[in-house]
Order: sequence, then structure tokens, then C-alpha cells
Amino acid sequence: MKNSVVQSLHPAYFSMVMATGIVAIAAWFLEFKGISLILHYLNMAFYLALLAMLVARIFFHGKAIIADLLDYQRGPGYFTFIAGTAIVGNQLVIIENALFYAKILLWVALAAWVLITYSFFVVITIKENKPTLDKGINGAWLVIIVSTQAVSTLMSTLAPDQPFGEFSIFVAMAFYMVGAIMYIYIMSLIIYRLSFFSLKPDELGAPYWINMGAAAITTLAGSRLILNIDIDTPMGDFIPFLKGFTFFYWSASTWWIPLMLILGSWRHLFKKVPLPISPQVITWDTGAWSSPWECTRFVLFYFQKH
Amino acid sequence: MKNSVVQSLHPAYFSMVMATGIVAIAAWFLEFKGISLILHYLNMAFYLALLAMLVARIFFHGKAIIADLLDYQRGPGYFTFIAGTAIVGNQLVIIENALFYAKILLWVALAAWVLITYSFFVVITIKENKPTLDKGINGAWLVIIVSTQAVSTLMSTLAPDQPFGEFSIFVAMAFYMVGAIMYIYIMSLIIYRLSFFSLKPDELGAPYWINMGAAAITTLAGSRLILNIDIDTPMGDFIPFLKGFTFFYWSASTWWIPLMLILGSWRHLFKKVPLPISPQVITWDTGAWSSPWECTRFVLFYFQKH
Amino acid sequence: MKNSVVQSLHPAYFSMVMATGIVAIAAWFLEFKGISLILHYLNMAFYLALLAMLVARIFFHGKAIIADLLDYQRGPGYFTFIAGTAIVGNQLVIIENALFYAKILLWVALAAWVLITYSFFVVITIKENKPTLDKGINGAWLVIIVSTQAVSTLMSTLAPDQPFGEFSIFVAMAFYMVGAIMYIYIMSLIIYRLSFFSLKPDELGAPYWINMGAAAITTLAGSRLILNIDIDTPMGDFIPFLKGFTFFYWSASTWWIPLMLILGSWRHLFKKVPLPISPQVITWDTGAWSSPWECTRFVLFYFQKH
Repeated sequence: MKNSVVQSLHPAYFSMVMATGIVAIAAWFLEFKGISLILHYLNMAFYLALLAMLVARIFFHGKAIIADLLDYQRGPGYFTFIAGTAIVGNQLVIIENALFYAKILLWVALAAWVLITYSFFVVITIKENKPTLDKGINGAWLVIIVSTQAVSTLMSTLAPDQPFGEFSIFVAMAFYMVGAIMYIYIMSLIIYRLSFFSLKPDELGAPYWINMGAAAITTLAGSRLILNIDIDTPMGDFIPFLKGFTFFYWSASTWWIPLMLILGSWRHLFKKVPLPISPQVITWDTGAWSSPWECTRFVLFYFQKH
Repeated sequence: MKNSVVQSLHPAYFSMVMATGIVAIAAWFLEFKGISLILHYLNMAFYLALLAMLVARIFFHGKAIIADLLDYQRGPGYFTFIAGTAIVGNQLVIIENALFYAKILLWVALAAWVLITYSFFVVITIKENKPTLDKGINGAWLVIIVSTQAVSTLMSTLAPDQPFGEFSIFVAMAFYMVGAIMYIYIMSLIIYRLSFFSLKPDELGAPYWINMGAAAITTLAGSRLILNIDIDTPMGDFIPFLKGFTFFYWSASTWWIPLMLILGSWRHLFKKVPLPISPQVITWDTGAWSSPWECTRFVLFYFQKH
Repeated sequence: MKNSVVQSLHPAYFSMVMATGIVAIAAWFLEFKGISLILHYLNMAFYLALLAMLVARIFFHGKAIIADLLDYQRGPGYFTFIAGTAIVGNQLVIIENALFYAKILLWVALAAWVLITYSFFVVITIKENKPTLDKGINGAWLVIIVSTQAVSTLMSTLAPDQPFGEFSIFVAMAFYMVGAIMYIYIMSLIIYRLSFFSLKPDELGAPYWINMGAAAITTLAGSRLILNIDIDTPMGDFIPFLKGFTFFYWSASTWWIPLMLILGSWRHLFKKVPLPISPQVITWDTGAWSSPWECTRFVLFYFQKH
């Protein structure tokens, strides 16, 4: 039985790690340090268990790994591994100041980003039978952006402690920019899909919360860059642009909140779609609260500065 | 008969208020104060008459109100109410310095923006039978952006007189950014539609002038922000970004002018599509002149500063 | 026979001029001055020969000229004439400091830009039978952006020597911005096409390298603006935005490099598509090397400044 769990493991399971980590970090900043520490250790256990299962799956169920990669619904799930790794890295820095382990996770996340990003885009380009837009795209595609920005966030957070700190900031900014342009590409397709192809209530699943989450983490990555850039280096010249551009994504993110709340209510209250117990539902619940929270923190932080 | 006029009132009729208001304001700046005042009072009469009809329609013809909202061609028309309200508010500030009434209109426009924007996007997402892109989208969708930027413009114009002026600027900037990102989303779809789906001459109606108008009002909203931000507040940090980003939309807007003139000539001269007498035609005529005018004013203003 | 060559001349032949010119300029900066001069003179010969053929084609084969313009595959080829002209202009400035001839080429490129850009967009809008996205779009559409940015580059390079230098910078910046927004529009469509429509190996031709090239020349145009703006003029206010925005396109461009290398290998090694001898193949080969080179030079330049 254990074997079949590994074989059918949904690649998006690392979204549980993402969600738990985001809550652990938020709790830490809110000074709920007990809860934060429990979630922090729990999440490292989740991460290691899922990692072990993923490695076992790669060794023993290579075909299932490839089949998932070829699937437009399951394929983007692999990006949750990158984001989960980077978020555990962030926990280690923020909660434990464990820079050494955080750096290892940064390298793991970076290697996974290169491998997964290019495998995914090569596969969807050369695949022979492709679904139409309405069957192919969903909010889960935005995890591509979330993972890119999560790598950027961890990299810029670690930059001040790196021997090549300025170069780290440079690379972190390039990741931020790649995430930013992909947000526009993918969101254009999602808006096209939502507006011009019929959407069944059960298709409006948790992944669409990532509409908001993707812009929220872009905001976070931009804020971290602004905080970690040394203004006396040439990178300092980019701060005015980063402030405006980050605000642009913050606004785009905030716009979605009421729409998602209304569509979520419609789905559960009027269409009686049950709240499923799945990895996604956890992202849903915590995403629903942590994204606006992150955004509000951004605004509060902003006005504090005054 | 009056009743059937109310029942079938096209929601886009407020475009007449938009057009008249834009001309009234332009005439005021050009020192044609007599003409400006006539248009100003005339427009308030238009606005109040249309508002009365809209309210009557909501009370007595709720089904027609909903049917229009569900229609991809007529639905975006509701956004002209938001933009019309904000433009009358601008008239009141610029021509009469009547800040109290302008603030009331700002609150009306804001409430309408929230209600109409989210109703529209909820409806087009959950609707069961959706048209294909070529039947569904047209230039009128860009009124979504125009209305967002019109609210931003009125809000930043009123900000220096508000008790929470800096917060008003903050919200006005968020509206500007939301309008800016939606311009990219919707324009990508419009370019896809124009380039890859056949377009009959009578489909190339007045709404396509809004291609230009939407970027022009984004330019205007950006310029107003730049002028109304107090550079000694934290918002002052956003000025360099706003200058560049606003110039980006000014360029995008200007690019469309020759294309629209050529396509308009083709439509009227070669394909003999008559110039219809409709609310749209007024937007066409005044849009055709006021958008380039607004853009040119931006450039002149810019070089004056030197 | 000469006649039939002229009649069937592919409008994209000027890509040979683009490619040779880019290599000539790169060789000059790398201090391979002998090779650079040979390529420089060779390229002017290519340019004049192709120009003569184009003029002959316009006079004697007007129908073929129009037929190409109406074709979604061949039509965008005309934009290579604009880019080729601007690149020869750049050669003249950089290698010979021949400002007078460079200015003539700038005016030729500008006139061609107006004529070709608006003809192309009018034609694809009013055309009755349009192909679907997968048959209609390909990387060649990005030459629209390349040509716009090539004009911007030549214009800002010549600006310091113009009587209306500041106005030249202003127009060059508007071209840069138009190219920048069109990059987003067209790239959204290309990503949609690559991800959701099946792609045969022979369709993944050289034009897709322009994915990278278009962002690379946007980077170049932005860098030239930054270098040529006089910071004591009002245009100086735009430098912070230009730095960030140019970095945005540099990042977008760099992201494509590994993807293009993998897809190119797949095409040639696994699918055995032969490397054809065509004007495109030259852009392929040189584009493959000169775009990353230009990008790397940008980064090196950047860190030098420190």
C-alpha cells in the first residue's frame, strides 16, 4: 500500500509545505512563537517525508514521474517542490537563523528550478496532443511564478551573508523579473480562459487562489530586494523602479481578493461543491488568509517608514 | 413610451456624459470659458437625467438590468456610469472648485466601481454559455480601464484637500496600477481578436477608439498622481517609476492614432458604413479629438518644465 | 531567371543584413578590426543589392509585394528591411563615424517603419480570411519589435549630434516603449501558441530564436538611451525607470536561452530536421551567438561601472 501511495503521489503535495511554512513565518512575526515553532518543526518533518517519497518515486516509478510531467493538470505541481524548499529555507533563516542549512536549501531550490522549469516548458512545447486552453490551464500554472519568486526571496534574504552578495542580489533580481513577466503572460491566458470558456463550479478549485498568491509573493520578493540591496552599490540604482513595480503587483494582487471571496462563496454556498480534504484545500485556507495578511503587512510597513 | 425608453436604455449612454465632460474640461483649459460653462451645465443636466433613468430602470426593470449585465456587448456599458460620474466630479473641481459636490461624486463613483467591477467579472466567470473571443470582446471592454483611471484621477485631484490626503494618493495609485495591468490583459486579447479573427467593417465601431482613450486616460491618471504627490512624503519615492510608466502608456496610446485613422477611413470611405447617430458616435467624435489632444498637452507640459 | 529571383524574393532576406551587421559591430568591439571591416563593407554591398532588388520588385512585381504583405508567414518579413537599414546605420556610426550617411539611413528606416508597421496592422485587421493562431503566428512576428528597437537604437545613438537632440531622445524613448509593450502582446500570443497548439519540429524554425533576440535588442535600446540621455535635461528623470525596465527585458531574454538550446537540439538531433541554407539560418546562427553576447556585455558593462 505504501508503494501505491508513492506511485500515485500528486506532485502538488509540497503545497502543504508551502502553506505550513507561510503560516509558521507569519505566526513568528505576530509573536506567537510557540505555535510558530511547532509548525516550523512539523513542516520540516513534512518536507523530509515528502522529499523521501519523491526520491523513492523517482527511483521506483520513473514512468509515473514522466506521466505527471506530461499532464497539464498535474505537471505544474512539480513547481510546489521548488517553492516548498525555498519556504523551508526562509523558515530556517527567520526562525532559527540557520544560514548554513538555508544555503543548502537555496542550492537545492535553484537546481530544481532549472530542471523543472525547462523540463516543463520543453515538454509542453514538443508534446503532440495538447489540450485546449480551457482544459489545459488553471490557477496551478501560477505556481510557476510562485516558485520563481520564492527562490528570489530566499536568495535576496541570504545575500548580505554571501561572499558574492551583490551578485546574489543581481541574480535574485533577475528571478524577480522573470517571475514578473511570466505573471503577465500566464494571467493573460487565465483571464482569457475565465472570461471566454465555460467554467464548471468544481473547476474553480483552490488553484485559483494562486491568482492572488502569485502577485502576493511577487510583492514579497520585491520588498525583500528593496530591503536587502545596499544602496551604495550599483544595484541601489534599481530601488526606485523596484518600489513602483512591486506596488504594481501589490495592486494587481489586492484586486483579486473580493473576486475570489465572491466566487468561493458561489461555489460552496450556491453550487454546494464540498470543501474537499486535499493538499489544495490547505493552500486554499491558508492562502486565503496569508496572502491578504502579507499584503496588509506590506502596507503597514510602508506607512511605518514615514 | 417613456417607459420603453427606460426599459431599453443602453448602459453605455453615460459615454455621452464622458464625452461632453472631456470637451468641457478641454475648453476650460483652452480658455474658451463660455463654451466650457455651457457644456458644463448641459452635462450636469445629462448626468442627472441619465441617472434618474438608471435608477428608474433598477426599480422597475430589474430583469433588463441583469440581462444587460450578462451580455458581453452591453455589459461593459455599465462602466461608463463610473467614468461619467468621475468626469462630472472633475468638472466640478476644475471649473467650479466645488470640492464638496466633487467628493460626493467620488464616493458614488467608488461605490459603483466596486459594485460594477466585481459583478461584471463574477458574471462573466460563472456564466454558462459564453461567446467566443471574436463575438465577445470589443473596444468597449476598455471602458473597464477608463473607469478605473477616471476614479484614480478624481481621487488624486481631491487628495490635497482631504484629511487623509496621503492615504488618498495611495489608493489613487493602486487604482492607477490596477487600470495599468488590466490594460495589458485586455489589449492582448483585443490584438489577438483583431489579428486572428475576421472583422466586418460594421464591427469596427466607435468602441475601438477606446484603444487609444484607455491609454490616454492612464497617462492622465499618472500625470495627476505625479502632480499631486507631495514629494516629502513616502509616496514621493514613487515619482520616478510613475514618470516612466506613464510615458510607457503615452507611447502605447500614441501608436494607435494613425492605425485608428486609417481603419476609420477604410470603414467610412471604402466600406460605406454610415456614421450612426448613437451614444457611441459621440465618444467616437470627441474621443478622436480629445485623446490626441490630452496626449499632446502631456508632451507640451513635459517640455514646459524644462 | 534574375527576374524570377526578384519576383519571389522573400521579404525576410534583409535578416542577412541584420545578422552580418550585428557580427560586424560585435567584432569591432572585440577589437577584431580586420574581420569587422570586411564584414562591414560586405554588408553594405548586401544591403545595396537587396535594396535594388526590393525596388525592382516594387516597380515590376507589385502584386507579389502585396501578396507577401497579406501573408501571415511572409508579411512580417518586411520588418527586416527596417531593422537591416537601422543596423547598417549603426555600423556607419560605430565603425566609420559617418554621421551624415547614418542620418540618411535613420530617415529611411523611420519612413519605412511608418509605412510597413501601419500597412501590416491595417492589412491583418481588415483581411477577410485569417489563419488560426497556430498557423498565423511564429517567431518572425517578433521582428516587429526588433525593427522598432533598432530604429530607437540608431536614433538615440545619433541624438547627441542632432540640433534637436533632446527631442530625438524623446522620440527614441517612445519607440523603445512601443517596442516594449508590443513585446508583451506578441509574446503572450507566442506562449499561448507554443503551449496549447501542437508544434511540428519543422515549425520550430529559426524565427523562434527571435524570442530571445527581441528582448535582447530591447535591452540594447534601453542601454543606449541610458547612455545618451543628458541627465541635466528633463529626460534625465527617466533614467531610474529605464534602468529597471531594461533589466526586466534583459531577464526575460536570458530566460529563453536554455529553452532555445534544448528545443534546437531536440529538433536537429532527435527529429533530424536538417539545418537548411536559408536567410533564416544565418539569423539563427548569428542570433544564437550574438544575443547572449550582447546580454553578457550588458552585464559586464553594468558591473564595470562600480
